[in-house]
Formats: sequence, C-alpha cells, structure tokens
Amino acid sequence: MSQLTIAVHGGAGTILKENMTPGLQQRYEQALQQALDTGYDILAAGGSSLDAVTAATVVLEDFPLFNAGKGSVFNHTGGHEMDAAVMEGSGLRAGACSGISGVRNPVLLAKGIMERSEHVMLTGRGAEQFARQLGLSFESEAYFYEETRYRQWQEALEEGKVVLDHNDKKFGTVGAVALDAAGNLAAATSTGGMTNKKYGRVGDSPIIGAGTFADNRTCAVSCTGHGELFIRAVVAHDISCLMEYKGLSLQEACDVVVYDKLVKIGGEGGLIAADAQGNVALPFNSAGMYRGYRNSRGGNEVKIYKD
Amino acid sequence: MSQLTIAVHGGAGTILKENMTPGLQQRYEQALQQALDTGYDILAAGGSSLDAVTAATVVLEDFPLFNAGKGSVFNHTGGHEMDAAVMEGSGLRAGACSGISGVRNPVLLAKGIMERSEHVMLTGRGAEQFARQLGLSFESEAYFYEETRYRQWQEALEEGKVVLDHNDKKFGTVGAVALDAAGNLAAATSTGGMTNKKYGRVGDSPIIGAGTFADNRTCAVSCTGHGELFIRAVVAHDISCLMEYKGLSLQEACDVVVYDKLVKIGGEGGLIAADAQGNVALPFNSAGMYRGYRNSRGGNEVKIYKD
Repeated sequence: MSQLTIAVHGGAGTILKENMTPGLQQRYEQALQQALDTGYDILAAGGSSLDAVTAATVVLEDFPLFNAGKGSVFNHTGGHEMDAAVMEGSGLRAGACSGISGVRNPVLLAKGIMERSEHVMLTGRGAEQFARQLGLSFESEAYFYEETRYRQWQEALEEGKVVLDHNDKKFGTVGAVALDAAGNLAAATSTGGMTNKKYGRVGDSPIIGAGTFADNRTCAVSCTGHGELFIRAVVAHDISCLMEYKGLSLQEACDVVVYDKLVKIGGEGGLIAADAQGNVALPFNSAGMYRGYRNSRGGNEVKIYKD
Repeated sequence: MSQLTIAVHGGAGTILKENMTPGLQQRYEQALQQALDTGYDILAAGGSSLDAVTAATVVLEDFPLFNAGKGSVFNHTGGHEMDAAVMEGSGLRAGACSGISGVRNPVLLAKGIMERSEHVMLTGRGAEQFARQLGLSFESEAYFYEETRYRQWQEALEEGKVVLDHNDKKFGTVGAVALDAAGNLAAATSTGGMTNKKYGRVGDSPIIGAGTFADNRTCAVSCTGHGELFIRAVVAHDISCLMEYKGLSLQEACDVVVYDKLVKIGGEGGLIAADAQGNVALPFNSAGMYRGYRNSRGGNEVKIYKD
C-alpha cells in the first residue's frame, strides 16, 4: 500500500507577516487544515486521490478569502470568470473549464468534464451549459460578492490596471495534489484569475501541462503564480519531464523549475507537488505561499511565509 | 547564418488516395506549396520565423478546404468557433485565442495577443473585442460558409455525433514551423475544431505545450490530431523535453511521441517539427497528413499519403 499524501495551496505572492493580523492568519491556516483533513479522510477511507484533491479544492473554493469559487476576484465588467482543472496520473485523464460564471465549484465541473464528456476542455457559456446538464450547483452574483474583492476591483478600475489578485501582488489560485493507497496520483487547480481582467483572459490553472498535471510515473503538480509565465514555461509538465527523462528527484525537479527556469523569465509564484513515493515539495519564489501537507507518516504542516 | 527552413501541415487523418480526385489533390498540393513559398520568401528576405509561420498559416486559413479560418467546420449551433496559437523560440513568448468567431485570420489574433497584450491566452467574446482593437479583419457568416462543411454538419447533426473534421475521420488543423537566418524557431497552429462541437470545446491547437510549442534550445512543433489526447500527452512540449533532457534528436523524439506514446493512449494524428539545425520531421500515425517543407539546402516536398 502506498503512503497516503495530500498537499494543498491557496495562492502565492507578496504575502507578508506585517500585513497580517493574528485572527486573519488563523482563518487562513484553519481553511488550509480543513482542506487537508477533508482530502486526507477520503484517502484514509480508501478513496481515490482524484476524489481527495477534488474535495480539498471544494473546501478552498468555498473559503471566501482565497481567489477561487466563492472568493473569486471581479473581472473588468464586475463579473466573475473562473477556471479549473483536474488530472489523474493513471491513464492521464484530464478535465478543464475556463471562463465560467455562476458555477459554485468549478473543480467539480472540471471533474465532470473528465468523467462524463468526451472532451478535456470546455469554455464559457458552453461549459456552463454542460455544468447544468451535470446538475451542478449554481449561485447568484450575491454569493460571489465579497466586499474586499469589490474594493480591490474598484481600485484596479481607477488605476486602469489588471492586478493579479489584489494590491499585494498575490497570485490567487487554490489547488491540491494527492497520492492514494492504490498508488495513483492526482492534481486539481481552481482560480478566479486576475482582478479587472479583460478580453476573456485565461491563465495557467486550466491548462493541462502548465498549471495542472499528473502522471503516476512521475508526479502530480498544481501551480499558482503569474499565469502567463507558467503557460510559456509549461511548468507542471516540465517538472514531470525532468523526473522522467533526466532522473531528477521531485525536489530537484521543482528546484530547477521554480528557482532557476521561472526566475530567469520573471515568473513569480510557486507550486505543490507529490510523487509516487509520497514525497511532497512546496516550492515558491515569492514572499509567501498559503500551503500545507499531511501524510500517513504522521506529517502535518500548514505554512504561509518563508521559513 | 542558420539554414532557412519551413514546414507546414493542413491536418491529418484517414486521408486515402481512393477518395481523392486528381483535381482535388492538385488543389491541396498547390495550397501547401503556396503556404511554403509565402513563408520561405519571408525567411529568404531576412524576415523572422514568427512572420514566416504566421504568413504561411494565413495562406492555409484562407484556403477553403482546410479546417481553419475560411474553411472552418460548423459547430453544433451552426456557427464557427476557431482556435489558434503562435510561439517563438527566443524568449518563449506565446499568444493564443480560443472559441472566437468572425475573425478572418485567427493566427493574426494569436500573434497580436503575444505582441500587444500582457496575456498569453484570450477566449471568446473578449478575444474578439481585443481583435477589433487591433484592427483585424472580420468576416460575415457568409465568408465562412462552405457547402461541403454545411453538409458535414447536417450529417453530424442527424447522427448526433461530434466528428473530428468530416466523415473521413480527418483532424482538421493547419500549422507551420520555421527556422530563420538568426537561428530563431517559431510555430503556429490554427483550427476550426470539430464538426458539431458543443459546450465551447477547445482542442490542443491553442494550448501552449500541447498543440503548439517553440524553444530555440530544442525545436518548434505544430500538431494536428485528436486534440483531447494531444492535450493529455502535452505532445509538443514532450518532444522538446525528450531532446533537452534525454538528448534525443528531433526525429527520435518525434518517433517516440507519435509512434509510441500517442499510439498507446489511442492518440491518432501527427505533427510537424523543426530544430535549430534546420532538420524537419513530419511524423503521423494516421493514414495521411497534408504536409510539406522547404529549406535553403534546396529541399522542397509536398505530400499527402504515406510514402
């Protein structure tokens, strides 16, 4: 039986202790722990890594302070356009959606696309139509309204800028990776994208290979960072290839990509990754990353800043 | 000075000589040659590989028999939703659009997104809005109307199927790769997707790493095939990684991906690729692929079937 392992993230960026209150930090940490526990319980009960990463991501999507699901940022027209993806390492099955509005949990739509359509990626109104056929929950604009997000949007509108999550240069995304008892890896990622984004912009989160990837032979990866750079560097798949073709360990592959290759092209952010032996890596080249992991060796850690 | 090289494709699939007339075959071959010559003339005049692949792809988009631009297939609602991407190997810059209607040459929008936005991927109505700001040409539905495509859609509607290009199981996509005198590689891909497609389906063409990729250190790749499988296998980036991390030649890397890895997951199709030495590879695991290449060593070939 494989080591059970799950890791989650709630975004990376300029997350600094001096801008945090103890109460706020506790809320973030509790949400990360709840996501870890929700996923881990599924793994411990013999569930699949796919179900574990999906359930953990739903917890993060429902938490109003992360930029995904309920806490998604406002786009240029005052709406919410969300993206998500899932992938499982056995058989390389994947599902993704982009530019969707109203769907309560985009990660469930990504999973539904993978399991119940013949496609990998659906977008916009068409993807929403498929979500309705699946019977997924929809929410009104009121559900997605968060005062803080609204103020961030108003500020971005005034400055005429597209901002990554808010003024703190935070890359708002959530995600999870896991290894189940059967030895199967899976990854999930979900995001509300960039505040004040225009033109149907899509980042790396729903791009298989860029923000999300899983292959039982190597690793499962979920990214959070400046999406454009992560797409161009095909980050998640690059880590897999460094392991498969160059024989690097998970940590070595993550180090090369996050601290060298991404830095060279100005790609700020981080990622979480797990391999088939139950190792995890949670590297980031920004000031902080909301992150945590839990495993069957008794490991359990939730962190926000650099050590 | 580098060898000048350009290769193009007009889709792969069950393309059989017995279903072709001499006149039709000549039209296909002329279109491919015209695309090669258009791109090659730019390279020979000292132009960039990016300009060469874009211009070659415009020729293929304007040709009514390939599934891209003017010849795009009908989607489920009787419209046309097109996808395109470009990438240049120096600096890994990329641009892509998906689910766009009315834009005469989607590849020009992909190039405009790369050069004139801060984003990599724009979708749907938002991407069209950006195209208008760029001053790109729009066409009415009449321009995109092709009798053959309409019949294929009607047949697909009756059968309730999503079909890849038409009854012949052809993966309609066009694309180009090139190496310019400065040693820069570039790739471009454009498609109308699948006949009768629903739900805003997006294939591999606009996905950087899957259908389109370029890196001066390795190769430029443009794919055509069953998009879902090409996304899951991150085909274009995989070829690059096999060269970079495993030291395979362009041809060896293409052979591994097209004849082994893709076949194992049922991924039918092919691709065109060029490396920094001016080598080209045009592998496909389907019955045929519209393809050709031209280089400064005097090489010039246009082919449709297996040898």
